[in-house]
Amino acid sequence: MDIEQYMQQVGQQARDASRAIARADSNAKNEALRTIATSIRRNSTVLLVANQKDLAAARTAGLEPAMLDRLTLSEKGIASMADGVEQIAALPDPVGEITDLKFRPSGIQVGKMRVPLGVIGIIYEARPNVTADAAALCLKSGNAAILRGGSEAIYSNRAIAALVQEGLTVAGLPANVVQVIDTIDRAAVGHLITMREFVDVIVPRGGKGLISRLLAESRVPMIQHLDGNCHVYLDNEADVDKALRIVENSKTQRYGTCNTAESLLVARSVAARLLPPVAAMLTANGVEIRGCAETRALVNEAKAASEEDYATEFLAPIISVKVVAGLDEAIEHINRYGSHHTETIVSENYTKAMRFLREVDSASVMVNASTRFADGFEYGLGAEIGISTDKIHARGPVGLEGLTSQKWIVLGNGQVRS
Amino acid sequence: MDIEQYMQQVGQQARDASRAIARADSNAKNEALRTIATSIRRNSTVLLVANQKDLAAARTAGLEPAMLDRLTLSEKGIASMADGVEQIAALPDPVGEITDLKFRPSGIQVGKMRVPLGVIGIIYEARPNVTADAAALCLKSGNAAILRGGSEAIYSNRAIAALVQEGLTVAGLPANVVQVIDTIDRAAVGHLITMREFVDVIVPRGGKGLISRLLAESRVPMIQHLDGNCHVYLDNEADVDKALRIVENSKTQRYGTCNTAESLLVARSVAARLLPPVAAMLTANGVEIRGCAETRALVNEAKAASEEDYATEFLAPIISVKVVAGLDEAIEHINRYGSHHTETIVSENYTKAMRFLREVDSASVMVNASTRFADGFEYGLGAEIGISTDKIHARGPVGLEGLTSQKWIVLGNGQVRS
Repeated sequence: MDIEQYMQQVGQQARDASRAIARADSNAKNEALRTIATSIRRNSTVLLVANQKDLAAARTAGLEPAMLDRLTLSEKGIASMADGVEQIAALPDPVGEITDLKFRPSGIQVGKMRVPLGVIGIIYEARPNVTADAAALCLKSGNAAILRGGSEAIYSNRAIAALVQEGLTVAGLPANVVQVIDTIDRAAVGHLITMREFVDVIVPRGGKGLISRLLAESRVPMIQHLDGNCHVYLDNEADVDKALRIVENSKTQRYGTCNTAESLLVARSVAARLLPPVAAMLTANGVEIRGCAETRALVNEAKAASEEDYATEFLAPIISVKVVAGLDEAIEHINRYGSHHTETIVSENYTKAMRFLREVDSASVMVNASTRFADGFEYGLGAEIGISTDKIHARGPVGLEGLTSQKWIVLGNGQVRS
Repeated sequence: MDIEQYMQQVGQQARDASRAIARADSNAKNEALRTIATSIRRNSTVLLVANQKDLAAARTAGLEPAMLDRLTLSEKGIASMADGVEQIAALPDPVGEITDLKFRPSGIQVGKMRVPLGVIGIIYEARPNVTADAAALCLKSGNAAILRGGSEAIYSNRAIAALVQEGLTVAGLPANVVQVIDTIDRAAVGHLITMREFVDVIVPRGGKGLISRLLAESRVPMIQHLDGNCHVYLDNEADVDKALRIVENSKTQRYGTCNTAESLLVARSVAARLLPPVAAMLTANGVEIRGCAETRALVNEAKAASEEDYATEFLAPIISVKVVAGLDEAIEHINRYGSHHTETIVSENYTKAMRFLREVDSASVMVNASTRFADGFEYGLGAEIGISTDKIHARGPVGLEGLTSQKWIVLGNGQVRS
């Protein structure tokens, strides 16, 4: 079978399975999830052996240590994968929920019903734990999933997928609700992102290179996750303690996450008062400061920031700093240089806080809170499949609800239109 | 200026204007809308003269009568255009609405705020009234609009756009909130649908040819409207009176609309009882019946339906009819041959009605009501920019809410993540 035929078959099987999982009741879905969790725990040795095969091949191929790290499954990692699946089983089922039923003058009742999207294609890189995570989220939200993990993780992914399919079968659901693309042929992705008849949404999880390629070539709608160039704005009415705490947490709690702050804006009238202590705190944390001329006049250790620095997601202990006239310039700067991910204002002023919330065009906009809160768990979604920087369908952390949509339902009693 | 430069300029102007209209208050937006309505009424002669120029050119070019008809503006059409704009002014403003604010264990409050999408590109065919309609919907929902009407309507569209821009200026809003692409160069569309940096969503309003081209070439997300191959299913527990009334209204009230029924499914056990009176009613209305073998055995005047007939949106007094075993086959047939637009079941059985609602994968699913109700006005949206057959973002009639999305807001008091 050639790769196109293979992908068409995977697509058709997913479409068929999506009908069954869409109408499956919560009990069957939860039983499948709990069975999968148990069997992941019970088969940890099988998973570790499969993972060793991937790791051996990866070492032979000379993969970078960071990549090897992401590829590695540990006993602890396997246990937390199982925990994750169980947590998803415990979440409320979003499918079938009816809201907003209202009588209309014609006598019909119109409302909305939450329904699965259908078939979700998930494209990700080396991390095998995404296989269990994505499978569980799609299953719970009533979708069929086609998973395309990095070719480096193919043995691990196959082993996890086998357990997932077994769990589905035990619960009386079609095994094809979750399929792993079982080839390392790169052409598979090209087919996956253009099979509109079989795939309803693509969720890419990976680096910029992957996303750019998919953006250019995909014919299927994407829930995309681009970079997180997040900002903290210290207003002239910022509380100093909150400012220090929020900048420190937003920037230094973790450097490699998309909700980490990469840029700091400070109102001119308080720059001389706020910047020196904030800079001292950042420097003490080992963070390199790249600032505008005014920043450098106040902060000795600051290097000069280039135009490009303001548009950069460093994912490293580096921060760009700019002194701005006030709220207007801060909002303008963020909307221009930011990536529409997450921004926070530190201010005690009600009107400015409200304007910031409304006028900053990002998926998450905060007042007096760390950007690091932009996360599905912190927001109460229970689990997330990614953080969307798109504007349509779902913005920010995407959980079960983001994997569904709402259709209209009409309850009548023989009404016709006049 | 070449066409690419021109479109880049239009895009940049729209992006700038989108920031202003996103933060405009309801009063300014409504003042603009009311001024536009008044000035459309006052300038009806100007609009008629501009429209005459388009009509003259269209006649010279030998356009079809149906096209000329859609292109024509009448006194009455102008008045109803103004009424439409005023109705949109009277709708509640969706922008800024905050919902679902909840405290989280960390102490932050997380909720959602409804915000405009940004810049909407609308691509439509000859009908100049769409210019006022789309402009008003985008303006009210806080979006900037780039309108690309059919080149046949360029004089009419320019004249309407001038009044819209005047209304914006009167209300103190940027005129560029609504721009009409002022060239008949077809390359403009190619640029519009690929300028991701300036355009957030494309709304195509037009025939299948237009949509297919856009689907293949667009790099900007689309709220698309494909065909409406809508079904009525007469269950074996259908009330005969309701069945007759609903089939008649769904099929014969108007033949050219997307929510018109194109296909009738009848449960086998009641086919002999229901099909003859239903067929007689349809025939009396001048509707041609194309049926399966069982249908033809019961209905003398029925022609043979081809496989293709079941997948066709006739937009004409023709209906395809099929006798099915029952609910399962009906749902399977609809999900396979339908276009995911609107379907209705006629049944007195609660369980089957609920299963139909849940398992039919369409934007609107109805029980005991005419498919003709699938409409923004009938659903209470006040106005619609189209009917989406997409699954993500918005399904079915798209009103002001569909032109917005929700961002996350976080209200804190100095919280950081631990």
